[in-house]
Amino acid sequence: MTTTTTPSAAGEAFSPIRWEEGSLLLLDQTLLPDREEWIRCDDIEVVADAIRRLAVRGAPAIGVTAAYGLVVGLRGAGEGEELRRRFDQVSALLNGTRPTAVNLSWALTRGRAVFEGAVAGGRDAVLAALAAWAQKLHADDIETNRRMGQHGAGLFTSGDRVLTHCNAGALATGGYGTAVGVINASWEAGKVSQVWVDETRPLLQGARLTAWELQRLGVPFRLVTDSSAGALMSRGLVDRIVVGADRIAANGDVANKIGTYTVAVLAHRHGVPFYVAAPLSTIDLATASGADIPIEERREDEVTDVFGTRIAPRNTEALNFAFDVTPNDLVTAIVTEVGVLRPPYDESIRRAFELARG
Amino acid sequence: MTTTTTPSAAGEAFSPIRWEEGSLLLLDQTLLPDREEWIRCDDIEVVADAIRRLAVRGAPAIGVTAAYGLVVGLRGAGEGEELRRRFDQVSALLNGTRPTAVNLSWALTRGRAVFEGAVAGGRDAVLAALAAWAQKLHADDIETNRRMGQHGAGLFTSGDRVLTHCNAGALATGGYGTAVGVINASWEAGKVSQVWVDETRPLLQGARLTAWELQRLGVPFRLVTDSSAGALMSRGLVDRIVVGADRIAANGDVANKIGTYTVAVLAHRHGVPFYVAAPLSTIDLATASGADIPIEERREDEVTDVFGTRIAPRNTEALNFAFDVTPNDLVTAIVTEVGVLRPPYDESIRRAFELARG
Repeated sequence: MTTTTTPSAAGEAFSPIRWEEGSLLLLDQTLLPDREEWIRCDDIEVVADAIRRLAVRGAPAIGVTAAYGLVVGLRGAGEGEELRRRFDQVSALLNGTRPTAVNLSWALTRGRAVFEGAVAGGRDAVLAALAAWAQKLHADDIETNRRMGQHGAGLFTSGDRVLTHCNAGALATGGYGTAVGVINASWEAGKVSQVWVDETRPLLQGARLTAWELQRLGVPFRLVTDSSAGALMSRGLVDRIVVGADRIAANGDVANKIGTYTVAVLAHRHGVPFYVAAPLSTIDLATASGADIPIEERREDEVTDVFGTRIAPRNTEALNFAFDVTPNDLVTAIVTEVGVLRPPYDESIRRAFELARG
Repeated sequence: MTTTTTPSAAGEAFSPIRWEEGSLLLLDQTLLPDREEWIRCDDIEVVADAIRRLAVRGAPAIGVTAAYGLVVGLRGAGEGEELRRRFDQVSALLNGTRPTAVNLSWALTRGRAVFEGAVAGGRDAVLAALAAWAQKLHADDIETNRRMGQHGAGLFTSGDRVLTHCNAGALATGGYGTAVGVINASWEAGKVSQVWVDETRPLLQGARLTAWELQRLGVPFRLVTDSSAGALMSRGLVDRIVVGADRIAANGDVANKIGTYTVAVLAHRHGVPFYVAAPLSTIDLATASGADIPIEERREDEVTDVFGTRIAPRNTEALNFAFDVTPNDLVTAIVTEVGVLRPPYDESIRRAFELARG
């Protein structure tokens, strides 16, 4: 793995994933907000490791990365059965990196179809087809997010103070962002006066990443601890909430960063609209409800340490669920690229997929 | 200010406040869990500074510290009007250190009565009377907590998994603790199988202090981020919640560490009993409801920095409410030294004070 420091371009189409002259570059988000270093991924293990350790994270970004990862992983492969065996290995490796975000298997399933369509032409044909497809997927993701932003902005009214949890911004996607995309589009439409950014322990994606993005976008925000959301809502300081998602079940239950469920429960008590912004690729029709979504449990030291400093006594045990599930009755609306979905979600989700299929 | 490192005694009567040969020593809790250093308070400014920067914290501990602080502050004072003027100055200085915990003004009001009763005898009589009173207050606080522990343990059943927020342990009191006292008494009664410790951002009193105390007591616990409580409850992993309080209004509304309200809302949704453990000195009959409790707003860098490491981009603004208010309808019971209070709290609180007066 080699890293290279490149000043990244400001502006809303910023992407944490680059495909430059056939090379995959990933912004190492573990180093933000202080350092912008890009990981050059010449080896599939480097890609898998980047996903596992959250150098690249966010359901849509993981999907796009996996697509490019297939190209990285098949370079240097043989032909025939060896090529197919390699595809299976690479796909399985990527699919095993993280369990909750469904965009990963969604992208790999589509990648397999591309592979099957090109494999008769041999390795170079497969590589060319996969590279073209991955770039298309990447561009489509940004376009999807822009559409989501427009649909979401229609839900906002002038002067809204909006709270978001974790990072569902450009950094979590191919570019532009889902929840932060909606906030950005609403801000550009003159409807947002202030964003409350939950810091999002344990890995502080709100403090490190969402703050970094909003600062670049020029959107006014204030950082709060995760346990402040209740006090803010009880004081009437929050008009809307918008978050992303790692997987949405067919019934509208939403798996997202740990703490999202808490925010949704508070929103319900205070009558604050709670929106989820996610592309259809995050909705998993094969998952009936939130109870069926696998929830990743991560290392204890993500809780017992902050930036390498231990915050608890030695030998302290911790529990570190990376995600929680928000039941559909707490979700006011789901903002997708084909429009705003409302309860009952089993019906509105089904119709959205029909619409997307044309 | 001089500091001295002394190994502190293990065991349940551990106190973060010591009165040794007429000297006030405070355990510097900002250095826990790694270092146990005691602050020797030979000057009233050192006492006030220790309260302000949370070297000593927790409503009952602040009350006991203020009592000893009156002795520290009156040493070297003159006689007559000079003595009275000095008392007023010292009392005002201590009272201004933190706004939310009512035990501070509660102790200072009682200290004034002691002063008035002894002032005819001159400075040395005042100092002797205040020192004796402060030591009595300190011992009474520990006894109060032990009684609270016994009353609270009656609420528990075998195998309970209990969640607590912040630190309401020996470190937050004269000794033994309020919420942690209840947990400890329940544990000793064989009723607790596991404690969930909220880390309690921004200053991590759960991770640093409650974990440190439970480890010394031998009570099994696991540390979680503040935003995990919802996931734990939705998985049925929490049987009871017990927290302390900084001020309880006459109607039973509870001001406590930021995030307490969120835990209470989640408990309500999941039907988990939510207990507050606090001595009557924390109940302020002069405060009608939670809306009348002043909520301290602390420095932004407590949020933007963790242990001196900045976690957000430069120039990030933050909002740092130190406390929130849990309305009485979310409180299952208030555990005091005279018994367990139940709703409606305006009545049960009134009766508790009548009982305490005998």
